[in-house]
Amino acid sequence: MALEFNVLAATEAGGRRGELCLPDRAVQTPVFMPVGTAGTVKAVAQDVLETLGAELILGNTYHLYLRPGHEAIRRMGGLHRFMSWPRALLTDSGGFQVFSLSAMRKVSDEGVRFRSHLDGSSHFFTPEHSMDVQIALGADICMAFDECTEYPAGRDRAEESLRLTMDWARRSLDHFRARCEEVIWRNELGGRTQSLFGIVQGGTYRDLRRESAERLVEMDFDGYAIGGLSVGEPRELTEETIAEVLPLLPAAKPRYLMGVGYPDEIEQYALMGVDMMDCVLPTRAARHGLLFTSEGRLNIKGKRYAEDQGPPDPACNCMVCRRYSRAYLRHLMQAGEPLSGTLNTIHNLAYYLGVMERVRKSLQPEE
Amino acid sequence: MALEFNVLAATEAGGRRGELCLPDRAVQTPVFMPVGTAGTVKAVAQDVLETLGAELILGNTYHLYLRPGHEAIRRMGGLHRFMSWPRALLTDSGGFQVFSLSAMRKVSDEGVRFRSHLDGSSHFFTPEHSMDVQIALGADICMAFDECTEYPAGRDRAEESLRLTMDWARRSLDHFRARCEEVIWRNELGGRTQSLFGIVQGGTYRDLRRESAERLVEMDFDGYAIGGLSVGEPRELTEETIAEVLPLLPAAKPRYLMGVGYPDEIEQYALMGVDMMDCVLPTRAARHGLLFTSEGRLNIKGKRYAEDQGPPDPACNCMVCRRYSRAYLRHLMQAGEPLSGTLNTIHNLAYYLGVMERVRKSLQPEE
Repeated sequence: MALEFNVLAATEAGGRRGELCLPDRAVQTPVFMPVGTAGTVKAVAQDVLETLGAELILGNTYHLYLRPGHEAIRRMGGLHRFMSWPRALLTDSGGFQVFSLSAMRKVSDEGVRFRSHLDGSSHFFTPEHSMDVQIALGADICMAFDECTEYPAGRDRAEESLRLTMDWARRSLDHFRARCEEVIWRNELGGRTQSLFGIVQGGTYRDLRRESAERLVEMDFDGYAIGGLSVGEPRELTEETIAEVLPLLPAAKPRYLMGVGYPDEIEQYALMGVDMMDCVLPTRAARHGLLFTSEGRLNIKGKRYAEDQGPPDPACNCMVCRRYSRAYLRHLMQAGEPLSGTLNTIHNLAYYLGVMERVRKSLQPEE
Repeated sequence: MALEFNVLAATEAGGRRGELCLPDRAVQTPVFMPVGTAGTVKAVAQDVLETLGAELILGNTYHLYLRPGHEAIRRMGGLHRFMSWPRALLTDSGGFQVFSLSAMRKVSDEGVRFRSHLDGSSHFFTPEHSMDVQIALGADICMAFDECTEYPAGRDRAEESLRLTMDWARRSLDHFRARCEEVIWRNELGGRTQSLFGIVQGGTYRDLRRESAERLVEMDFDGYAIGGLSVGEPRELTEETIAEVLPLLPAAKPRYLMGVGYPDEIEQYALMGVDMMDCVLPTRAARHGLLFTSEGRLNIKGKRYAEDQGPPDPACNCMVCRRYSRAYLRHLMQAGEPLSGTLNTIHNLAYYLGVMERVRKSLQPEE
């Protein structure tokens, strides 16, 4: 069953207000997706995520495959049930973490051999295996297995990397189509299955990005992601690449920009026509004391906040800004208290989700 | 103004159902007080503590004095306001941590010189200084500065330690009476002030405990604590000491047993007539994966829970047991996720607070 995506309104600049109809839930787009690497958005409980209005969160296939294991999660009813998350989930393909986290890796046309960053054990991931793992996890949306081209990458390297990613996209899709009816909740949800998105790569080469997009569209995925950005390239290049790729993707399908970015970036790209974004920034920065506010970035460790009784962000109405002072958050951070990461993360997620909510309102169709 | 404490019902065994009328709030006793060392009950947000039904929590004077500093907290309106805790607070005297945590200490009749465990800086605590710090923090209940006699302690050592503690109790009380009107919220709360409890010491020597209790009662504190227990002595000795001391304390004033204990202990001692208890056990054990349940202790790290989809405690209705499985809690612990400590702590506190709630019901006066 094809993924239903309704574009409710669109602007001349390309921005769209949409609705992503996932098997058990409709998600309003543009949507920001908090990252829940190991089956938890670090330091924040699920009921708080619900209160914050998170609708769709990410799980990392690489982490969940290694621990607790995808088969264990399937036996327990899939990732939604395992982590008690009744809303929507997306899993990445594991590719990015294999390349960025694992201790050793060897790439061949067949797949990637790598050693676990946890215990050094040896594993082999292929597009087919990534699909099997993601079907076992049972997220609403799965991602094709790809190689994230690093920046900078020479022309030859980018071409070779793209060749691999396109071959793996084909194999991912074929295997997914053959197996997607095995997802554990299929009967419970009226025969619906997961969706699979392809990932546009090609580094910073316009023609390679174009080729990548066209070939993926031809394969007919449920949605399309733009990968390989926010990997160190200058922001103008990020923007140019997005502007180049977006018009090549079918307007009737969701477009996902992976791993981006700062609050002003997610706003800008959503207004350009990106429907989905994820980023570790709000959660990771929070644990290091960096808060995003309507007044800019605030490093809560600063001595000048030691007796500042104002809220982290005077314009924010989140549960942290309503209750706690900058001085208290600074104290928690200085004292290494676990509540520090929790409260900082809650505020940053509220801020990111709030940015996206405002963007959705600005894209709202007229009554 | 004297602390108002109403005994609503009492059993033959000595157990009492009471009501502690603190300046801004009445607390039902017997009460279990979660420990919030540095102005936070580790890993749990204040709104969750409220939901759990925590009415009175502890702050540690030693920690708050060193960081962020009692003067800073007073300038920010006192500890309640600093940590955004609208319910009741008790601070210890700092003595226990000076003896257990500091890097170096030198005791004289005058007080204790010690080095901070944080940065090695040198500090000097006297009974008078402990009172000043506690008045600056502004908790509802303060504790006299004492020396916690270690176990085992020979007769000479216990006598000498008790002499010091009794001298310090007198000085604590005199200084507190002279200064207690300086508490920052006094005008706001109709002229009410903090309360001060004396601490019975004397090690495991019955006559010393008796002497200690009688001398403190003569000084006329607002309430009385039993200190120096749960420091390694056998449980029968703990029980004997409590049974020896309780009848010596005035029935009309609250009795606080410090730093005790396991769930069955807090139940037992409450039924013997203890009105208040605190312990780090539910919070500290939680962070190490030890859960207290109606079926006994459960080490959530156990491999046998890897795919156990049951709740941590089938008889528990807390927000963790209603939503998460043992398998998920085990996974969070294995993965070193911060949510692990949070969820484990919430359950353990719910369990401890639930034990005390049942005890209060069993002591309820007949209608």
